Amino acid sequence: MDHFIGSLSAAAREVPASGIIAAVNHGRSKAGVIPLWAGEGDLPTPRFIVEAAERALRDGATFYTHQLGIPPLREALAAYYEAQFGRAFDPDSFFVTGSGMQAIQISVRLCLGPGEEILVPSPAWPNIAGAAIAQGSVPVPVALREESGRFALDVGDLEAAITPSTRAIFVNSPANPTGWVANRQTLEAILDLARRHNLWIIADEIYSRFVYDGSARAPSFLDIAAPDDLIVYVNTFSKNWAMTGWRMGWIHATPALKSTIANLIQYSTSGIAEFMQWAGVTALNDGEWFVRHMVDRARQGRAIVNEGFAGNNRVTYSAPDGAFYAFFRVAGLVDATEAAFRLIDEAGVGTAPGTAFGAGGDGFVRVCFARSSDSLREAMGRLGHYLETAC
Amino acid sequence: MDHFIGSLSAAAREVPASGIIAAVNHGRSKAGVIPLWAGEGDLPTPRFIVEAAERALRDGATFYTHQLGIPPLREALAAYYEAQFGRAFDPDSFFVTGSGMQAIQISVRLCLGPGEEILVPSPAWPNIAGAAIAQGSVPVPVALREESGRFALDVGDLEAAITPSTRAIFVNSPANPTGWVANRQTLEAILDLARRHNLWIIADEIYSRFVYDGSARAPSFLDIAAPDDLIVYVNTFSKNWAMTGWRMGWIHATPALKSTIANLIQYSTSGIAEFMQWAGVTALNDGEWFVRHMVDRARQGRAIVNEGFAGNNRVTYSAPDGAFYAFFRVAGLVDATEAAFRLIDEAGVGTAPGTAFGAGGDGFVRVCFARSSDSLREAMGRLGHYLETAC
Repeated sequence: MDHFIGSLSAAAREVPASGIIAAVNHGRSKAGVIPLWAGEGDLPTPRFIVEAAERALRDGATFYTHQLGIPPLREALAAYYEAQFGRAFDPDSFFVTGSGMQAIQISVRLCLGPGEEILVPSPAWPNIAGAAIAQGSVPVPVALREESGRFALDVGDLEAAITPSTRAIFVNSPANPTGWVANRQTLEAILDLARRHNLWIIADEIYSRFVYDGSARAPSFLDIAAPDDLIVYVNTFSKNWAMTGWRMGWIHATPALKSTIANLIQYSTSGIAEFMQWAGVTALNDGEWFVRHMVDRARQGRAIVNEGFAGNNRVTYSAPDGAFYAFFRVAGLVDATEAAFRLIDEAGVGTAPGTAFGAGGDGFVRVCFARSSDSLREAMGRLGHYLETAC
Repeated sequence: MDHFIGSLSAAAREVPASGIIAAVNHGRSKAGVIPLWAGEGDLPTPRFIVEAAERALRDGATFYTHQLGIPPLREALAAYYEAQFGRAFDPDSFFVTGSGMQAIQISVRLCLGPGEEILVPSPAWPNIAGAAIAQGSVPVPVALREESGRFALDVGDLEAAITPSTRAIFVNSPANPTGWVANRQTLEAILDLARRHNLWIIADEIYSRFVYDGSARAPSFLDIAAPDDLIVYVNTFSKNWAMTGWRMGWIHATPALKSTIANLIQYSTSGIAEFMQWAGVTALNDGEWFVRHMVDRARQGRAIVNEGFAGNNRVTYSAPDGAFYAFFRVAGLVDATEAAFRLIDEAGVGTAPGTAFGAGGDGFVRVCFARSSDSLREAMGRLGHYLETAC
């Protein structure tokens, strides 16, 4: 082993590379590739949000600030939740983080230590497993049941995976990459399981607005939880307000965890830039129309993918109930990473290989459909043509 | 124990609060308090740097980007080092982080695991210990020798603290809060020790430009290290370019660690905003005059503190060789945190209690002198008067 690598901590040596990033890095500098590999669309952050950051920069908001987020942002988060859930929320239950990713990292650190296990319904966004492995904890995949490209969680499978080392369940609904959306009954069954086994739930509800059954949001643990349930919610500004690059997210949890979360933030990044936080305030307070626009756009994207795959004999696909990804099986797909590279090089379409999402992703490909109709139609055309003629 | 706290991971339960933040939180909203508690001055980020971020925002640099930093920023870092050290550096040896704090967190994660020890010459900035404790590792303070308010490291003390669990030495020179600056001979002795015991050095050289002996920078491990030495350098844009609030830093290390560091960044924050990185490019490429201005200002601040404490019988103080803090002993000081709160409430001066800096900080107080002469003179006047008449 390399002299340096051999001297690293055990966890650092074992932390895996992301298969999504591998695809992005392969294709990033290639002209003409339509990038459907990541969980972001093609709209930059809208001007009215950017301008709030610019105003704050002009006002000199460049100093250290509240590590848990400036009070107006925590109040805006409480108001946003009130609008979503129809009841009051305590601003002191919101903790601003440097991305939804950091919200997950801190939640993982809150709930489990080295050698302890977290159940992860899979296929899943690889970064939850990565955050666990990076601190020496153990992500335990629990395979979603799949039929004709449609995924669902059997809560019995979750229970069967519990060991004496299990400390938490990661529940991402609506789910990346599968589009699975837990209904209220399933959430109740998971919560019941967590209560009986004294497990934390890390609820990743970042795609909650992206559902396609006509409702305004997906079912949430917030609809059913009691005040003393062990639940930490992670979320992000990225998807709703086209702010992927900003690295702004939040945790919602009991105010009893305020000091602990403050300390974990203090010793990881010590908070985020005040001038960015003012953009978050504007997004939450004035950006509801934009969220709806983003969801509409994703709905159109979903229809375009449906159309594009209709009659394609190599593809097994079921339109997702939520999130904004098509996750489809390609008959005859052997090496998924290799295939993702070839799709970039030969078809000019950036996809994420199903293997990047762990157990159950073999043979699948993920594309993000939250983008302009023209560009997505072009990408689907290239993809369809390529899958029929090559691979 | 609280229902929630009792259910947390062991490390989360044990992560300590920062005594600096306690003082800041106590005084933040109090009108008229002169804030010398934190490591930042009173200048907002200069316009020419801010404008680079604004330009990037207008250009739509709001998407996901390179997790290790955009290539122009890593090239600008290499050029900055070349100017400092008079030789070429590989851009691939620079890794952009979300603050110097995150650079430390990732370095700690690289070098040691749960139960493993890192030696920390103390008094020290508390966040290095915090980062270790938060991941279940053990910070081992090694007391600097103090005489008449002047601190220095005895490398023999460092060696005496090594156990079979020791994996790393944290070397912050110039040092916060003590102002200690390791000379080349001391750095050589530390490096020799690290080599003999196969230990990592985490070199925190963020105050390297803030030295007061007329030289352009402090001695660095980069002056003496061989290519295969186990050294990770952590740094930040905060101090040199008045960018404390931006949360931008970097790691310099062997390119052999590139994948590992990329993965650790991926699973903690996944990088920082591209529009902020362009501000970093401008700071590095066009901001040398501003760094010199900041150092000049700190030099003036240091002189004002010297003047202010001259003839004060309650204060034991030695002007620091580096960094921009006065760390002084106050005779009769019993409860340092309580005293810091009283200084805020009764004297209108925000200080950090010496106890916040761990072993050896008892009886001391830290103030930051990197600020305008007028405001600092006023603060010193208040402080001197208060120490003579009350406490």
